[in-house]
Amino acid sequence: MRTLLPGSLLALAAALVGFGLFAGEPVSFPEGYRSWTHVKSMVIEDDHPLADPFAGIHHVYANDKAVTGYESGRFPDGSVIVFDLLEHTAADATVQEGERKFVGVMVRDRSAWPQTAGWGFEAFDGDSRTDRLVEDGGVSCFACHTARKQQDYVFSEMRK
Amino acid sequence: MRTLLPGSLLALAAALVGFGLFAGEPVSFPEGYRSWTHVKSMVIEDDHPLADPFAGIHHVYANDKAVTGYESGRFPDGSVIVFDLLEHTAADATVQEGERKFVGVMVRDRSAWPQTAGWGFEAFDGDSRTDRLVEDGGVSCFACHTARKQQDYVFSEMRK
Repeated sequence: MRTLLPGSLLALAAALVGFGLFAGEPVSFPEGYRSWTHVKSMVIEDDHPLADPFAGIHHVYANDKAVTGYESGRFPDGSVIVFDLLEHTAADATVQEGERKFVGVMVRDRSAWPQTAGWGFEAFDGDSRTDRLVEDGGVSCFACHTARKQQDYVFSEMRK
Repeated sequence: MRTLLPGSLLALAAALVGFGLFAGEPVSFPEGYRSWTHVKSMVIEDDHPLADPFAGIHHVYANDKAVTGYESGRFPDGSVIVFDLLEHTAADATVQEGERKFVGVMVRDRSAWPQTAGWGFEAFDGDSRTDRLVEDGGVSCFACHTARKQQDYVFSEMRK
């Protein structure tokens, strides 16, 4: 089973979900994100500490509200950020994009996800718009993103 | 001097420009392209045959007309495709984006550039909107792009 949950957080997450603290609302698939603004990209190699599940080439996309968030440092409700992760193939002195691993999504809605600073998290497996990978209501996603509290919990920065 | 012209084509290009065959119209800087549709990306390593000048991580962007071109296989006048080339830095099991090397541009206008199948070519150095790198009216660019005549002279394909 593919999971986005680091093993060390599994017990905590399961407990919190069990207590109903992180039920949250389901995050919708970000239809049309391929025509949104491209924020930045990065390759994570197979020997990176976060290779499971993040190895590959990823592209970050932002809808118009999220673009204003990157500019101001505060993301308004309605902001949607997509982490589009593809396999990467190194060959012939190139690194090329491969199949999609998953589409990660962050949605800002302070009333829907108050326990995670107003961010909802989800990931859709491969090219599926329905097969969901986040099983703990986003608590483990949020656990890492709290390191970026000063940036309103967003890791990426808009490349010029 | 940085040039985008492969050495083997230099004499031919100089001769053609000398004869005034490839004067063409100047290609404008593609203002606003960072919010256009992201087509695909690729890393070209330093030991690739095209490393000079193409080594780095590049992102391809398309305006709305060019998006219809990718879909139909025929790019209408007004199509603009941007090849945004950044330095790439490999460290700590990642490949990250660095400074911009140049912004390459293809513009479709069959009346403006009839000698190059209706495509105008330019490249803007670094973050400049005025320092131009293409010195032969695009003939050397076009020489490579003719290999993709069946794709209307465009190398990239829209990633899903």
